[in-house]
Amino acid sequence: MHSAEISEVAPRDGLQSIGPFVPTETKIALVRKLHAAGLRRMEIGSFVNPKAVPQMADTAAVLEAALALPGLEATVLAPNRRGFEMAKAAGAHRVGVFMSVTESHNKANVNRSRMDSFLDLSGIVSDARAAGMKVRFNLSCAFHCPFEGVVPEEEALDWVERVQALDQGIEISICDTTGNAAPDQVRRVFAHAIRSWPDAEGKPRFAFHGHDTYGMGVANCAAAWEAGCRVFDSAAGGLGGCPFAPGATGNVATEDVAWLMRRMGVATGVDWAKLLEAADFAAAIPGALPGGRMRAVPAARAA
Amino acid sequence: MHSAEISEVAPRDGLQSIGPFVPTETKIALVRKLHAAGLRRMEIGSFVNPKAVPQMADTAAVLEAALALPGLEATVLAPNRRGFEMAKAAGAHRVGVFMSVTESHNKANVNRSRMDSFLDLSGIVSDARAAGMKVRFNLSCAFHCPFEGVVPEEEALDWVERVQALDQGIEISICDTTGNAAPDQVRRVFAHAIRSWPDAEGKPRFAFHGHDTYGMGVANCAAAWEAGCRVFDSAAGGLGGCPFAPGATGNVATEDVAWLMRRMGVATGVDWAKLLEAADFAAAIPGALPGGRMRAVPAARAA
Repeated sequence: MHSAEISEVAPRDGLQSIGPFVPTETKIALVRKLHAAGLRRMEIGSFVNPKAVPQMADTAAVLEAALALPGLEATVLAPNRRGFEMAKAAGAHRVGVFMSVTESHNKANVNRSRMDSFLDLSGIVSDARAAGMKVRFNLSCAFHCPFEGVVPEEEALDWVERVQALDQGIEISICDTTGNAAPDQVRRVFAHAIRSWPDAEGKPRFAFHGHDTYGMGVANCAAAWEAGCRVFDSAAGGLGGCPFAPGATGNVATEDVAWLMRRMGVATGVDWAKLLEAADFAAAIPGALPGGRMRAVPAARAA
Repeated sequence: MHSAEISEVAPRDGLQSIGPFVPTETKIALVRKLHAAGLRRMEIGSFVNPKAVPQMADTAAVLEAALALPGLEATVLAPNRRGFEMAKAAGAHRVGVFMSVTESHNKANVNRSRMDSFLDLSGIVSDARAAGMKVRFNLSCAFHCPFEGVVPEEEALDWVERVQALDQGIEISICDTTGNAAPDQVRRVFAHAIRSWPDAEGKPRFAFHGHDTYGMGVANCAAAWEAGCRVFDSAAGGLGGCPFAPGATGNVATEDVAWLMRRMGVATGVDWAKLLEAADFAAAIPGALPGGRMRAVPAARAA
């Protein structure tokens, strides 16, 4: 049987942009429920300036609780060297770094050029690997950019090529940050990447990070899967919507991805009933902006 | 540029199962708004026993209004010979017939065996073609059945083979009635059908009818497109949800399919702003069970 790995991002990408501060114990309860649902990999938080992202101010405490859960691989995002050092000191299994494929989004997001980001992150990747940490390198806006529109596939693949050349043992996520990638584009980019840079060290080198903003999240996951991608980011309850676009869905929902995989005969290791429980819990967090659709379907509930 | 044809089904599949009777003038207004949005093909209603489906009792009046709209191809569903004769007499451009790929669903739906349905429908198809009408042959539950679960691909293709042999000039819709088809299954079935029975008479022979019940509607349309399907059923506003499963989405939303096609560089002929207007109108019909997600996305609204 085929299998796919879900990297659950509700605790980080799902929560980070919501207004009311989510109490640390709620975040920990969410992580525990996700773990109980069989999710064995999670983006726990971000060691970012708490003035910039107040919701992530308690990442150290949430990470500590996560590290106590058996078999859970904990990723923490680090925007810079300081964040990486904190992630390393705190014992995160994997550090996540990120830059954008488009110059304008990278400038808007981290106020520097792509090349400056890449050079800094190269040093962090190298140090993280030397320290025995796993690395996730996120390439944001790889398909569509809020400033530049559709991203040429060659531009995305150029950056994938640079990143993969750093170290064959790191995982590269080709991210649809805006949710506006098209399935044929996702298929082509992943097919090209996977053909060009095959798996090394027995692990998949590529991951897909999708959003469901325009209703294409599941279609894009299906396309990535069919092109050979085996690692998927998603958020239980489809958290991660934009607070300024009421009703706009966020990260592709873990329950939607799990259902898709289930129907395609792909094992994900999740316990379906417990995943829906976790999704319900996530969606009920005050301030949360849930997406996902499984809550409505009795047949799926009963499956 | 590639192009796809959308067959808009909100007036029939979108409305038929909702409780309150939708006034005839509302149905006609919906048809007009959909036509104004550039949709040139529509499933207007069904000549079915009004006691069985009271919502469709005014199909003749809605059809009359639809036939007055320039360039609109009007389809009417006919469950039997009586319905076909009514459709022909009323001047429908295309008659839609249907049977299920699974024995148990066909029995539950029309109280007879598949072979009995097929033989009857064969006669209707032949008479409709002799009368110069276009024909749509819908194969329901071609991927998944509420009673039998996942439908073997060979079973679906067996029925496609029988139907295509009737007449190369009819259009066959391979329908995901329950919304639980998986994209890889859709891709395989369409790829096989299109390879085995190529287009005849310069028109696509196959169509995909998808529901979004489990969030896979757009993914399945993308898979069908990639396999070569060029005709898609969808309902503005994602109407067609089940009244007994609150929040369960119905037909895949026309705005979602149109957005998918737009992002894949496929022309559909729709006017985006007017389509959203029609979707809003559809979703606001009292008793309607809307799905679709475009209403929430300002960027899509402004596109």
